[in-house]
Amino acid sequence: MQYPEPIAKLIESYMKLPGIGSKTATRLAFYTLDMDNEDVSEFAKSLISTKKDLTTCSICGNITEQDPCEICRDKSRDQSQVLVVEQVKDIMVMERMRDFHGLYHVLNGVLSPIEGKGPEDINISSLLKRLQTNKSITEVIVATNATPEGEATAMYISRLIKPAGIKVTRLAHGLSVGSDIEYADEMTLSKAVEGRTEI
Amino acid sequence: MQYPEPIAKLIESYMKLPGIGSKTATRLAFYTLDMDNEDVSEFAKSLISTKKDLTTCSICGNITEQDPCEICRDKSRDQSQVLVVEQVKDIMVMERMRDFHGLYHVLNGVLSPIEGKGPEDINISSLLKRLQTNKSITEVIVATNATPEGEATAMYISRLIKPAGIKVTRLAHGLSVGSDIEYADEMTLSKAVEGRTEI
Repeated sequence: MQYPEPIAKLIESYMKLPGIGSKTATRLAFYTLDMDNEDVSEFAKSLISTKKDLTTCSICGNITEQDPCEICRDKSRDQSQVLVVEQVKDIMVMERMRDFHGLYHVLNGVLSPIEGKGPEDINISSLLKRLQTNKSITEVIVATNATPEGEATAMYISRLIKPAGIKVTRLAHGLSVGSDIEYADEMTLSKAVEGRTEI
Repeated sequence: MQYPEPIAKLIESYMKLPGIGSKTATRLAFYTLDMDNEDVSEFAKSLISTKKDLTTCSICGNITEQDPCEICRDKSRDQSQVLVVEQVKDIMVMERMRDFHGLYHVLNGVLSPIEGKGPEDINISSLLKRLQTNKSITEVIVATNATPEGEATAMYISRLIKPAGIKVTRLAHGLSVGSDIEYADEMTLSKAVEGRTEI
């Protein structure tokens, strides 16, 4: 005997999500069975709507309901700074900080020779075109992750852009706020010493 | 800035599932954005269908598309045995074993004074009614979990049914097949000694 078709299909769908195996998928499907009708139809609607109503901003690569996106449309933002991030989610993290008021550019990945990802696989050419056409941009802040791939991508971008006379900066490395020196790794400590500031 | 509405709502929906917090929900929502259109619409359809097309079998409490369920309709099954389980999922586990060919009854829970669950909160009265009306049932196998609540529920059911002259049995306790005695807990070992069989 098999599960009735509707729930068997739902289990299959849950299993397509990352990190969800057959046991978790079964648990989630049975949980769905006990959920409010309204919550489930809301869930189904938002699944469809996420695929149908969202598009990529043609300027920065952010996801948006309207192209260009909210940030690119907002003329009150500082038009001279572009912060380059690896993924759309990073924009939200930056926005939560409330200290950056410029524009964004989403690479949608990083250079990774191991995964066979070269410059043509991420949104670097669109960044270069943007800098060429929009002369108000004077600084590019590269906010890729502090991983070897993130660093390499930052270096690559910097070498391409600097010749055009645009300032290229990188987020500072150092100790996390609230962290213990005792538990910091050597690389972080070394970066913290290197980037020390006068008090 | 907030996430665009469709994805914000999808994140909210994912967060209603058990064990999924805001970070995982966000990861799943962005993963959904990159999924095939077909997979996503299949997912949405099966969510709706699970709520709409499934009902509870009026005889045994199993979930089914047609009432009575496949197992209750199957006259080739042994009509004299009823195996009592805590939840619908347990039926599937039993069926996978392929050694039981009788009928089932789903309690939908166990007696639990701590959670305030009494006999009227689980499907015990429907079991009693079933035994009264269907005289072909001669054995009730109680397959509740080997937890204190499961044991108590089994004892409760046994006391209610035995006076009617119906045989009540319980699944055997003992060592798991393939397990080491070294790692068995005392309760299990004690049950294994108690239930020893001649060879």
